[in-house]
Amino acid sequence: MTQHTHQTAPTQFVDAAGVRFAYRRFGKTGGAPLVFNMHFTGTMDHWDPAVTDGLAHDREVILFDNAGISRSSGEVPGAIEQMAANAAAFIRAVGLTQVDVLGFSLGGLVAQELALAEPQLVRRLILVGTGPRSGEGMASLTPEAQRIFGARYDEPDHLWLKVFFTSSEVSQAAGRAYLQRFRLRVEDRDPEVSDQVAPAQLEALARWGAPRENPFEYLKSIVQPTLVVNGGADVIVYSVNSWILQQQLPNAQLILYPDANHGSQYQYPERFVRHVSLFLSEKDARG
Amino acid sequence: MTQHTHQTAPTQFVDAAGVRFAYRRFGKTGGAPLVFNMHFTGTMDHWDPAVTDGLAHDREVILFDNAGISRSSGEVPGAIEQMAANAAAFIRAVGLTQVDVLGFSLGGLVAQELALAEPQLVRRLILVGTGPRSGEGMASLTPEAQRIFGARYDEPDHLWLKVFFTSSEVSQAAGRAYLQRFRLRVEDRDPEVSDQVAPAQLEALARWGAPRENPFEYLKSIVQPTLVVNGGADVIVYSVNSWILQQQLPNAQLILYPDANHGSQYQYPERFVRHVSLFLSEKDARG
Repeated sequence: MTQHTHQTAPTQFVDAAGVRFAYRRFGKTGGAPLVFNMHFTGTMDHWDPAVTDGLAHDREVILFDNAGISRSSGEVPGAIEQMAANAAAFIRAVGLTQVDVLGFSLGGLVAQELALAEPQLVRRLILVGTGPRSGEGMASLTPEAQRIFGARYDEPDHLWLKVFFTSSEVSQAAGRAYLQRFRLRVEDRDPEVSDQVAPAQLEALARWGAPRENPFEYLKSIVQPTLVVNGGADVIVYSVNSWILQQQLPNAQLILYPDANHGSQYQYPERFVRHVSLFLSEKDARG
Repeated sequence: MTQHTHQTAPTQFVDAAGVRFAYRRFGKTGGAPLVFNMHFTGTMDHWDPAVTDGLAHDREVILFDNAGISRSSGEVPGAIEQMAANAAAFIRAVGLTQVDVLGFSLGGLVAQELALAEPQLVRRLILVGTGPRSGEGMASLTPEAQRIFGARYDEPDHLWLKVFFTSSEVSQAAGRAYLQRFRLRVEDRDPEVSDQVAPAQLEALARWGAPRENPFEYLKSIVQPTLVVNGGADVIVYSVNSWILQQQLPNAQLILYPDANHGSQYQYPERFVRHVSLFLSEKDARG
């Protein structure tokens, strides 16, 4: 049997909840697969193969486009809860009853709602570059994010150098290496998202980030062992939101990386893979 | 050759800076040894063998009593800077020119000053349950610490159940396991510190914690790769001080553990050993 990788895994399709979901599945089968939830306007091809293949070494990895994204049919809902319901439908449709869930940025909001709504489906949770409901600076895009997403780039991919990396030389060099890696797959790539995606995702983000009473109370109900990871200098979802998640979740570890912005896991892919592998492989996540 | 462990390593002595230092040295020789700096009123025998032996598996570990502590001669200075100078004298006296430094609580303040004053002596830094100059709640013992250290305990060791662990059942059970482990060594134990130690250490703590202008500026000068570790619910040195350290140090990772008070490394010794080993063994601590 051929072991597929990030580059070679074929895009497959499965129907659930009225949506035809595009996904890829690769890595070592056996335990709970790890399902990746993508960020704002991202597709399966924005994941870093150094991260996905690194984690696929010891476990099965599943990438997918949620409803309305790239080759998945349907529409992007204007609420995170509905995105999570779609993610749950997808997970069940591929025949799984328990998975580990990684969510990055917007995908981290989806991962939280998934753990809340479907606690039996989610074994462990990894929240990367994300934050809680009504988190700091989360009622809208941060001023830095507005500037970065609003600018024009000669090379469209260079947007991600600003979104994910700091302005330091070391971080920018790591960013260029990431851009090379995520372009390595040339065949069967996901098309970029349509123009309808960003407005719908922004609507969902605004609902999630809006101020409310006792905004963090819901986090007490997410009892899965959780690993929170971010850069210490995230200007897209402020790093303090990762601190809040750790403080409010009943069973969360926090790891922050130095000189790192929103894409810390792409800046330190080997370190991130080791930390996540350690977290997922601990027998008792409390001990 | 016999490989010594936490239990069997003989207490040795070395003279430097007018002090006769008691120390123990064990583990795998080769790279930079890891020098442990102890907390308020602690001796070499308050370290957890699960941590020291765990780390000694891959590196040499050095425990010592700083000046005026237990079997080391001299007096406890009333300033962290002088404690760091004594630590540097000790390290040189045992023939070392570069070491990794771990400091826990008060020992973490000493470790910071050591890295500042002797940058060439310190390769990497591990700051556990500690904080910056003028850190939050560090001008004196926190109210919680005053209550915990001021109480009487039928078993004196039970003080540490309150200092190091949360009130949760899981944490208290981990605490009792720690107390068993740190009592495993029965021969050649350090005597408890004299009555002069606590007042002098409190004087040094108060100086360190006193408010001042731009208190965190000095952290920019600690350029060693640093790992900051704490429990997410530290009431002795508030956890937010670990966040501040990560935010202000130029090259620091932060790791916080769930449901853990001041002694998070004793609550999760295996996890802590893995995280520290990973940090110390990375070729490039930035990548």
